Amino acid sequence: MEYRIEKDTMGEVKVPADKIWGAQTERSRNNFKIGAPASMPLEVIYGFAYLKKAAAFTNCELGVLPIEKRDLIAAVCDEILAGKHDDQFPLVVWQTGSGTQSNMNVNEVIANRAHQLAGKKIGEGEKTIQPNDDVNKSQSSNDTFPTGMHIAAYKKIVETTIPGVKQLRNTLKKKSEEFKDVVKIGRTHLMDATPLTLGQEFSGYVSQLDHGLKALQNTLPHLSELALGGTAVGTGLNTPKGYAKRVSEFIARFTELPFVTAENKFEALAAHDAMVETHGALKQLAVSLNKIANDIRLMASGPRSGIGELIIPANEPGSSIMPGKVNPTQCEAITMVCAQVMGNDVAVTVGGTQGHYELNVFKPMMIYNVLQSAQLIGDACVSFDENCAAGIEPNHGRIKELVNNSLMLVTALNTKIGYYKAAEIANTAHQNGTTLREEAINLGYVTPEEYDEWVKPEDMVGSLK
Amino acid sequence: MEYRIEKDTMGEVKVPADKIWGAQTERSRNNFKIGAPASMPLEVIYGFAYLKKAAAFTNCELGVLPIEKRDLIAAVCDEILAGKHDDQFPLVVWQTGSGTQSNMNVNEVIANRAHQLAGKKIGEGEKTIQPNDDVNKSQSSNDTFPTGMHIAAYKKIVETTIPGVKQLRNTLKKKSEEFKDVVKIGRTHLMDATPLTLGQEFSGYVSQLDHGLKALQNTLPHLSELALGGTAVGTGLNTPKGYAKRVSEFIARFTELPFVTAENKFEALAAHDAMVETHGALKQLAVSLNKIANDIRLMASGPRSGIGELIIPANEPGSSIMPGKVNPTQCEAITMVCAQVMGNDVAVTVGGTQGHYELNVFKPMMIYNVLQSAQLIGDACVSFDENCAAGIEPNHGRIKELVNNSLMLVTALNTKIGYYKAAEIANTAHQNGTTLREEAINLGYVTPEEYDEWVKPEDMVGSLK
Amino acid sequence: MEYRIEKDTMGEVKVPADKIWGAQTERSRNNFKIGAPASMPLEVIYGFAYLKKAAAFTNCELGVLPIEKRDLIAAVCDEILAGKHDDQFPLVVWQTGSGTQSNMNVNEVIANRAHQLAGKKIGEGEKTIQPNDDVNKSQSSNDTFPTGMHIAAYKKIVETTIPGVKQLRNTLKKKSEEFKDVVKIGRTHLMDATPLTLGQEFSGYVSQLDHGLKALQNTLPHLSELALGGTAVGTGLNTPKGYAKRVSEFIARFTELPFVTAENKFEALAAHDAMVETHGALKQLAVSLNKIANDIRLMASGPRSGIGELIIPANEPGSSIMPGKVNPTQCEAITMVCAQVMGNDVAVTVGGTQGHYELNVFKPMMIYNVLQSAQLIGDACVSFDENCAAGIEPNHGRIKELVNNSLMLVTALNTKIGYYKAAEIANTAHQNGTTLREEAINLGYVTPEEYDEWVKPEDMVGSLK
Amino acid sequence: MEYRIEKDTMGEVKVPADKIWGAQTERSRNNFKIGAPASMPLEVIYGFAYLKKAAAFTNCELGVLPIEKRDLIAAVCDEILAGKHDDQFPLVVWQTGSGTQSNMNVNEVIANRAHQLAGKKIGEGEKTIQPNDDVNKSQSSNDTFPTGMHIAAYKKIVETTIPGVKQLRNTLKKKSEEFKDVVKIGRTHLMDATPLTLGQEFSGYVSQLDHGLKALQNTLPHLSELALGGTAVGTGLNTPKGYAKRVSEFIARFTELPFVTAENKFEALAAHDAMVETHGALKQLAVSLNKIANDIRLMASGPRSGIGELIIPANEPGSSIMPGKVNPTQCEAITMVCAQVMGNDVAVTVGGTQGHYELNVFKPMMIYNVLQSAQLIGDACVSFDENCAAGIEPNHGRIKELVNNSLMLVTALNTKIGYYKAAEIANTAHQNGTTLREEAINLGYVTPEEYDEWVKPEDMVGSLK
Repeated sequence: MEYRIEKDTMGEVKVPADKIWGAQTERSRNNFKIGAPASMPLEVIYGFAYLKKAAAFTNCELGVLPIEKRDLIAAVCDEILAGKHDDQFPLVVWQTGSGTQSNMNVNEVIANRAHQLAGKKIGEGEKTIQPNDDVNKSQSSNDTFPTGMHIAAYKKIVETTIPGVKQLRNTLKKKSEEFKDVVKIGRTHLMDATPLTLGQEFSGYVSQLDHGLKALQNTLPHLSELALGGTAVGTGLNTPKGYAKRVSEFIARFTELPFVTAENKFEALAAHDAMVETHGALKQLAVSLNKIANDIRLMASGPRSGIGELIIPANEPGSSIMPGKVNPTQCEAITMVCAQVMGNDVAVTVGGTQGHYELNVFKPMMIYNVLQSAQLIGDACVSFDENCAAGIEPNHGRIKELVNNSLMLVTALNTKIGYYKAAEIANTAHQNGTTLREEAINLGYVTPEEYDEWVKPEDMVGSLK
Repeated sequence: MEYRIEKDTMGEVKVPADKIWGAQTERSRNNFKIGAPASMPLEVIYGFAYLKKAAAFTNCELGVLPIEKRDLIAAVCDEILAGKHDDQFPLVVWQTGSGTQSNMNVNEVIANRAHQLAGKKIGEGEKTIQPNDDVNKSQSSNDTFPTGMHIAAYKKIVETTIPGVKQLRNTLKKKSEEFKDVVKIGRTHLMDATPLTLGQEFSGYVSQLDHGLKALQNTLPHLSELALGGTAVGTGLNTPKGYAKRVSEFIARFTELPFVTAENKFEALAAHDAMVETHGALKQLAVSLNKIANDIRLMASGPRSGIGELIIPANEPGSSIMPGKVNPTQCEAITMVCAQVMGNDVAVTVGGTQGHYELNVFKPMMIYNVLQSAQLIGDACVSFDENCAAGIEPNHGRIKELVNNSLMLVTALNTKIGYYKAAEIANTAHQNGTTLREEAINLGYVTPEEYDEWVKPEDMVGSLK
Repeated sequence: MEYRIEKDTMGEVKVPADKIWGAQTERSRNNFKIGAPASMPLEVIYGFAYLKKAAAFTNCELGVLPIEKRDLIAAVCDEILAGKHDDQFPLVVWQTGSGTQSNMNVNEVIANRAHQLAGKKIGEGEKTIQPNDDVNKSQSSNDTFPTGMHIAAYKKIVETTIPGVKQLRNTLKKKSEEFKDVVKIGRTHLMDATPLTLGQEFSGYVSQLDHGLKALQNTLPHLSELALGGTAVGTGLNTPKGYAKRVSEFIARFTELPFVTAENKFEALAAHDAMVETHGALKQLAVSLNKIANDIRLMASGPRSGIGELIIPANEPGSSIMPGKVNPTQCEAITMVCAQVMGNDVAVTVGGTQGHYELNVFKPMMIYNVLQSAQLIGDACVSFDENCAAGIEPNHGRIKELVNNSLMLVTALNTKIGYYKAAEIANTAHQNGTTLREEAINLGYVTPEEYDEWVKPEDMVGSLK
Repeated sequence: MEYRIEKDTMGEVKVPADKIWGAQTERSRNNFKIGAPASMPLEVIYGFAYLKKAAAFTNCELGVLPIEKRDLIAAVCDEILAGKHDDQFPLVVWQTGSGTQSNMNVNEVIANRAHQLAGKKIGEGEKTIQPNDDVNKSQSSNDTFPTGMHIAAYKKIVETTIPGVKQLRNTLKKKSEEFKDVVKIGRTHLMDATPLTLGQEFSGYVSQLDHGLKALQNTLPHLSELALGGTAVGTGLNTPKGYAKRVSEFIARFTELPFVTAENKFEALAAHDAMVETHGALKQLAVSLNKIANDIRLMASGPRSGIGELIIPANEPGSSIMPGKVNPTQCEAITMVCAQVMGNDVAVTVGGTQGHYELNVFKPMMIYNVLQSAQLIGDACVSFDENCAAGIEPNHGRIKELVNNSLMLVTALNTKIGYYKAAEIANTAHQNGTTLREEAINLGYVTPEEYDEWVKPEDMVGSLK
């Protein structure tokens, strides 16, 4: 393979000739062969592109960077954001815990690419733009990486997670309204209970997701706080006056998102509680989605030996050996996602606890998990919605059969004849395999007319309306 | 042992003569010998006492319970809340997942004690008050237990957790101000970095706890929603019109807390996402506290072979074998609490995922963990505050020695001579075991006057002010 | 309240006159008001009693403790093990992370009680036995507490957990044999699949528990390694020659369990991987038990609107509002236990990661969780066994109805007519609501005779026999 | 894009013309757009290649597959194992929970590629080999996927994890021997304690990894059990006699690993406790590695304001802003891996609990996490070893300075003058900032000669030798 020589403060390094990264990127590639290459999420790189551009604009405005350098840096950042250099970021999550090497990867790529844009050849002549002194001006890995984390996470949450969850929520809401008159048996402890409507059941799912969305949105203010301007330890050493506030305004402008400078930069570098907070809300959504998907596959189970109250779309052959089998595969995909998110929550939590002094050095791992969870929840909700929820239909015949057969309709008699006599009716019918009506009358507790007036499933679901 | 006979719908049960609980409590005691007895938290029982009283008032107001019964029920509830019957609730967390048996335990104790208050002897004559038909009127375990959970958790959070965290936060804030001029070395990656003030360092802790408190408060609205009125499956079967809203108003009045009726009762029974949400915030606080306590014990380490920048109170002999040893024991207690809370979060999360149809049956386990975490965090913050944080003092001599010795002061030269030359100075001083000043001058990059003007630790901490 | 004065190296402390603990216990009580009092498990105290006695015997044998002191110490240890001093150990889990204060609590109680046994009054005259110099001789908290942890955990595992799991396993094995001819429908993805016997289904549960028991037993050797003899940092400073090996032999003799001295004392103090390892196996059992209990409650669900294949004992009224309801309460209790154990696993894991240098200071929290999980699993298995598993009966009518109705019997035709034609038969029957037999013949793929010969549920379950 | 038509039992599907997968693969691609494409680990696909080949050989030997088909299938499997078709497996982890679609992906690729090998063009003529009837003969997704999981996990553990951990363990062992005479201060509670040798400290790390490796090896027997032969629900329907045992022998032969047929196929399909068990051991290793890496970075902290006892290799510039900074980056990478593994453990655990009836449908998620953890631990150990551990050197001057300065050497006097007087000496020296020797003599407790004879750090480390 062809190489060229790149240098940093520790000396010379051979870099593949067809790559535009520099010495420190190459050192990291060699020193951290852990897991698949390039596992550092591109979303973080894009976050860096926004902030490097914003820093260049701010530095220029505040008089510490010439406008030509600003424009070169900004031009490369725009190229990165357009996806033109995705293959120039080969580093892994499992590197230095501050993400320094990914910061330098971005600095090096911007510097070398700027050199090209300035009409020169990489490795020839003095660098038009210096990775440390220009691209990284008024910055440290310690404030850029967390800024990149917040940009990446915020964007993922508002562009993927929230729209995905909302799409599913809206379908469930629509179904809840469609099914508002479908009276079915309720089940508690998995056992037959008093009736409700299928619409009411679905309204619970909607309420879960509404609460979850609210909880997720509650975490956005913390996520909107940017560390940039804190530099090495939070004091803002080597930044021009006014830098922190101004650079966050540029980031807000470029991303069109409401980012602000963190009020306390020491917290923003040394802790990543914002990540813990946001992932906590993602985990809550996972809990809700797990409940919903579980219910749906239980109610769709069968077709002949299960519950069979719901009909879900048959999207693919369900079995490689059992002909004609259809499975609740979307429920399975989303519940696997939920389990993953529950696990990721522990990883993020553990990382969050382990800051030392002025810096938390679990940054890449934390953002990796936050982005994975945010993406998976968003995608899984869309997939579940389009391939399952939107097509759910009640199996009216089965629903009716089950509700009419239920012993728990007896609860309607509590207020008429008392809990004890009602229990006796239910127990007798259960033991004899008979109906409540028969036994209620046999036992002499109600007349046939009373029974028919008092025990109507459709009258048992409406008290809250 | 002496017994009396109690009955329920399944028949007769022998109950210890000196206890006032009934048949279902006794069945549960016998059927669930899991772990220590009486592990169901008393806070849940007290939550029940509030709601049973509120239900009695509401039932009476809505015309379905006579005023005499209301007053008897309320009188027993007040006795329970006064702690007079703590030994009448022998059941364990590991019972039915709906907490039905603890609901019945409360119903039975109220009914039997009301019988006594009515001047009668338990077991003689017809019960003055029926456990199911009177005490439990317009209720189900399925809506009472989650209501008890919310009351217990809300009270614990606002009475123990938040005040405890705030107390510690205020001490740290005070320390942050006291220490605002103490310039010390910063550390990133555990390695020497540029300086900051001890006050700035502590301000990061304050910011963490402020964010954590805000996150916890964000969860209170969900926690303020009460399931009561949903009865068995969320439809409100067997409740009088207006009951749900009215009963929550009574609970709010009796507890003096802003409880409201849950907008969606199906969510409130079938899911406990409010518990997941609240515990997620407790976990975030645990993450923050772990970071803070870790930092403090690292900075207080020594006295001679550690960092030694902080002096913490010596509260007890530290070692049974090493004379004169003093240990950061409060840091250890609180970080153990943090680990416990992190574990509890998984238990609550797992429980939260497993609702089926109309009911989540991990209720007792979930509230047990929420209450434990809320209590431990609150208590540990107070203990840590009073026995450690309040007494923290800087070791000024040591702090000064370390900051002046640091090689990272060289960073101040970046903007004067560039990153590369600055690095050369630092590396040379490191290799030669000399000072930055010596090598900066030797290498000819700065004059002595320039060095003394440019490299001042106290000038390196203020950029953000 | 009446007090007496006790002293330690830091000075005088007032101790309640009716208690026999000393100064350091009292300091800890005052300094760590976190959670309920006396949360340090008695099992740990008993572990201490074994090791203090063993240390006294070893010290005496090796010539550093007079026989009179040995016998006094041993006498108190025997009293402690007989449960006579349970109220003398008021400390909490959330104390110093080395458990020093519980070690001193034991030392102080032994010293003061020995003083009494020697016919003197506590607080009068010189102490007959010194807490540090005699009771704690050749010991440190750092090696005694982990020794107490291992003794407590080992005993709990072999006396409670393993017997409990085995009892349930044996019942399931017996059921598996009883049900070996009960052909029922299989279910995969919760959907109807090819048949198996109920005995085969239960044999899977037995296999899970057998694997889990083996995994748990695999952890016992690590747990059998005792830290005692390492003293403060693992070097064994201040121990007589031969002490470590000999003291573990005495512990083995007194406990009748195969304890040995840890080959590496540095690991035994600084890490508690043995706790992590053992709890990992407890967690695996929780996973298995959760699966088993879930299956049983699903199969027992109904009675009329669920699966209804199993009949489980009705141990208590299931509902405070729905008369005649019976719930799978034992399944609920044990799955709540499983969730708790899953959470505890994270707490133990987090604690395990956080040793620093020569000592892990999450000891009390770790053993607290290990003991809770070990107890809960053991107890829950016994409760589940006696109140549920032992009474499980097949609902033969329902089982037969479901299996005969199943479309997945068509799989038997794969090897006769191919997967595609078989799928067509199943799909047609599903759409038409007809039987496989009808459609198989209608479609002309088989004759009636062929169908009856080829599609027999009872022939589809035996290939593995 | 160009397409061709593929068919399955649900109808026609357009497949990209340049791909050799079939209808069901394409359906899955379209139905599960969750996360990055092709996330299903290739290791699982290779596991399938082994088992499909073994199944073909077994089917042939048992007379149900012609030798020509066997050889075609085997030839494609060998191509897959040679990495020639890596781009033909585009499916994601987040699909059906049985992995059916990846099983079909393999079946379809084998069938189509076999068609090519038979000299025909895909899509023309009848398929030479049928995906279901030939490639999948005597199999189900339900037994093939877990078999693929076990093959993939077993191989990863023995080829990557164990060698990686052993490599690091051996380096630490070598260091432990090299450092056996380096007497240093011990630290407990992060505070100065009695001395030990650096070699002893490292021996604790070796012991941790030895215990961890043993724990991991204990899990291999469960992992060696293969589900294959159980087919759809564990009964082995549609397999020829002797198939299960024989096919596992072929797999053992082809993989050169000791696989056996699972004794109980119901456990092997419905539960994945073997995954839980193996991942539990991976988590234990993560706990150990976290402790070790933490210690090393603490001891290497500085260079001037930390502990500074160890010198670790400087592999890259540590900071983008602080010149000359060197960080413990390998410690950071490996502790991030540990946090990830701790999170993954929860995901695997949650997945493990959720089997229903005859099938666990969290299979892809579980194996994804097991493989990630196994890979990351193995890789991180090698990286940590080569770039850090192998280059660790003691900073002798610093080590000597700290140990000689320590107050905890006073412990050596316990057995001479008692714990109380020793404590007085230490406290006095601490308060006066003097040496132990001075104060010991001043206080009149020892003569200078006694002090020099009794208090020698090098004599305080050897009691265990």
